[in-house]
Amino acid sequence: MTSVIVKSRGKFVSTDSRERMVRSAASLIRTRGVNATSFSEVLADSGAPRGSIYHHFPEGKKQLAEDAIRWTSERVLAHLRAGAPATPADVLKRFIDMWRKVVLTSRGTAGCVVAGVAIDTDAGESGDVDLVRSTFRSWTGLLAEQLRAAGVPSERAAPIAVATLAGMEGALILCRAEGNAKPLDTVAEELLRLLPSAAPRPVSSGARRR
Amino acid sequence: MTSVIVKSRGKFVSTDSRERMVRSAASLIRTRGVNATSFSEVLADSGAPRGSIYHHFPEGKKQLAEDAIRWTSERVLAHLRAGAPATPADVLKRFIDMWRKVVLTSRGTAGCVVAGVAIDTDAGESGDVDLVRSTFRSWTGLLAEQLRAAGVPSERAAPIAVATLAGMEGALILCRAEGNAKPLDTVAEELLRLLPSAAPRPVSSGARRR
Repeated sequence: MTSVIVKSRGKFVSTDSRERMVRSAASLIRTRGVNATSFSEVLADSGAPRGSIYHHFPEGKKQLAEDAIRWTSERVLAHLRAGAPATPADVLKRFIDMWRKVVLTSRGTAGCVVAGVAIDTDAGESGDVDLVRSTFRSWTGLLAEQLRAAGVPSERAAPIAVATLAGMEGALILCRAEGNAKPLDTVAEELLRLLPSAAPRPVSSGARRR
Repeated sequence: MTSVIVKSRGKFVSTDSRERMVRSAASLIRTRGVNATSFSEVLADSGAPRGSIYHHFPEGKKQLAEDAIRWTSERVLAHLRAGAPATPADVLKRFIDMWRKVVLTSRGTAGCVVAGVAIDTDAGESGDVDLVRSTFRSWTGLLAEQLRAAGVPSERAAPIAVATLAGMEGALILCRAEGNAKPLDTVAEELLRLLPSAAPRPVSSGARRR
C-alpha cells in the first residue's frame, strides 16, 4: 500500500492515497450526503488500497468527513483570497461563481460538503457540528471583511455575508431539484441587490432587469 | 395491529398508524436526513406496530420519505394560505415565521424534510428528485402569487420567491450549525429588503437598521 507519513491532520501536501481519499470523500458527500457515503465507495473512487482506511483514518468515517470539510474549506478560502476584488459586487460574484461551477460541472447533482455533513448530523450526537459552525463562520467572516474593504458599511457587511452564504447553500439545494443552475442565478441576482447603491450594480426597486 | 384501509396514497384522513409513521418520518428526516432514518426508528418514534411497514409502505423507505414530503408540503401550503396577507412583507414573514418555529421548537436541530431528501438523493439514481422539484415549485409558485396579489410587480415576485425559499433553506443549515435562530433572523431581514420600496418596510441602501 502507499506508505505516507502524515505529519499534520488537515494538511495535504502531496497527492498521496490519503489526499485522494479526502478528495473522493468530499466529492461523494456533496453528491449524496455523509450517511450514504461508504468507505468502500471512497476506496473505489480514489483507487486507494483498502488498508489505507485504518492507516489514514483510525477514527473512522467521522474523521474522513471532517477532513473533507477542512479540505473544502481551505479551497473556498483560497479561492476567495485569490485576486483582489475591487468592488462589493466582485466580492459576492467571486463566491457565487465558485458555487455556480460546482453546479455546472456536476450538472446540478452536487451541493456543499459542509451542508451535506450539517444536514446528516444529529447536533445532539456529534462533535461535527463544531467544525461545521467554525467553517461557515470562517467563510462569512472573510466575505464580510472583503465587503468592508470594498466599501460596504461595516454594519451591512456581516448580514450581507450571512445572507449570501445562506442564499448559496439554499440555491444549491434548489439546483439539485431543478438539475440546472437557474435557481442559483436567480438568487445571485437578488443577493447583488442587497449591496449599497454605491456598488457598481445598483438596483432601484425592481425596475431594472438584466 | 391497527387495521386501516388506505384508499389513496398521500392522503391522510385519520390519525392511524400510517399517519403517525409519516409524521415520525418527517420529524426524523428533517433532523438527520433520509439515509440515517431507519424504519426501526420510525416505528419506535410513532409507536406503530412492525407489521405496519409492509402494510402501509410496500415500496419501502422511498415511499415513506415521499409521503413525508407530501405531508410536509400540504402543511406548508395550508400555512401560507391561512389568513390573508395584506402586504408583501406579510407574505414573506408568514413563510419565514413557519421556518423560525421549526428552528426554535427543535432548538436548532431540525431542518426541512424536502432538503433532507434532496441532499441525500443522488439525482441520477432516484425519482425522488421529481417530487422534490414539484414541491419546491409549489411553494415558490404560491409565494410569488401572494406577492403579486399584495402589489409586488409581476417580474419581481418570482425571483423574490425563489430567493426567499433558498434563503430559508440555507438559513436552516446555518441554524443547525449555530444551534439557534440567529442566522435565520439575519437572512429574514435581508430578504425583506428585496421588497419594492412601496412595501411597509422600505430599506434605503443600508442606512436603516432595526
